Amino acid sequence: MSSDLPVFLAAVSLLSALHLAFQARRVGWSRMKHKIMPPTVTGPPEFERTFRAHQNSVEMYSIFLVVLWISGIFCNEVLASLGGLLYIVSREMYFTGYIRESKKRLPGFFSVLFALLFLTVMATIGIINSFMNKYLNTRLL
Amino acid sequence: MSSDLPVFLAAVSLLSALHLAFQARRVGWSRMKHKIMPPTVTGPPEFERTFRAHQNSVEMYSIFLVVLWISGIFCNEVLASLGGLLYIVSREMYFTGYIRESKKRLPGFFSVLFALLFLTVMATIGIINSFMNKYLNTRLL
Amino acid sequence: MSSDLPVFLAAVSLLSALHLAFQARRVGWSRMKHKIMPPTVTGPPEFERTFRAHQNSVEMYSIFLVVLWISGIFCNEVLASLGGLLYIVSREMYFTGYIRESKKRLPGFFSVLFALLFLTVMATIGIINSFMNKYLNTRLL
Repeated sequence: MSSDLPVFLAAVSLLSALHLAFQARRVGWSRMKHKIMPPTVTGPPEFERTFRAHQNSVEMYSIFLVVLWISGIFCNEVLASLGGLLYIVSREMYFTGYIRESKKRLPGFFSVLFALLFLTVMATIGIINSFMNKYLNTRLL
Repeated sequence: MSSDLPVFLAAVSLLSALHLAFQARRVGWSRMKHKIMPPTVTGPPEFERTFRAHQNSVEMYSIFLVVLWISGIFCNEVLASLGGLLYIVSREMYFTGYIRESKKRLPGFFSVLFALLFLTVMATIGIINSFMNKYLNTRLL
Repeated sequence: MSSDLPVFLAAVSLLSALHLAFQARRVGWSRMKHKIMPPTVTGPPEFERTFRAHQNSVEMYSIFLVVLWISGIFCNEVLASLGGLLYIVSREMYFTGYIRESKKRLPGFFSVLFALLFLTVMATIGIINSFMNKYLNTRLL
């Protein structure tokens, strides 16, 4: 096994995947609490908020993985991993906030956006730098 | 082209992607059968179960890819690929079971969970091993 | 940093992730226009079409990433990246068409399928070639 593997990116990715699975689990618990059997996805507001909180995580999860890995491989693994941890914490804030009240999802949401923006900027810098290095034989930084 | 490419992981990933696309296709067939035109996503119970069976696959697919690739790269490619094949077969059991009756999704669902757990354990061992090897100059196994 | 990094695949992936985020943003704008507050996902037909257009992108996005990267790494990075650009343009056609009328999503949809098929064929060739090279010491092409 190569010792050059991006172990921090892998650890943060695994953590984020487990967190997404845990959110799915909490939708299942909400189903039991409100007695809503699959395939139904409508019901009391609390259940619908829980369901949508998880859906929103699913909708953005692939975007997160793309910017996490590109920023980590093309720019800086440790910084990208820290951005990834911020994303996971923000997702938890979003989820627990949303369950209580729709408006309470917003602080977590803005923190999610900030983490994604941070990773996107790093990924962009990394791609430009790598392109210049590979094809123009020069560097951005 | 490097001959060190993880060809089994790639083959299993491609197969799983085609299987997910096939599930989307079957939702389309169910739309035709029950005459439910997009963007409507509600209708007779059989259609709603088919729709949700596909949605559940989408919700868990990124989690699957993360644990498949981390376990395959950081731990053992052949074992991870076998776990991936089990996941695909379990997804098919889940889908065909769910279409017939909500309760019949459960055997496939538990098999999906088992495959994901297997890959998660391998991924965790691989990450810890790689971390110890890279930063502590020692090994778990 | 290795100068062998697949910078075109990374650039196309980043672009596709930003495009998916932009689609989510347009669902948000449609929410404001039609005054539909989360977690509600039903409303006037235009909102429901916008919502489903984004959902369809989410459902297929992981499939796209799998075939993009496998075809790019195992077969040809530049061709795969061009296929990826076609996918993004097709997604935009699908989205803008769907918002106006359900039927107008179809040209973009068939273009999406064509891009995915192109990438799937390349990925399959790449995997077979890599397998023959690695284990049978021969080549397909």
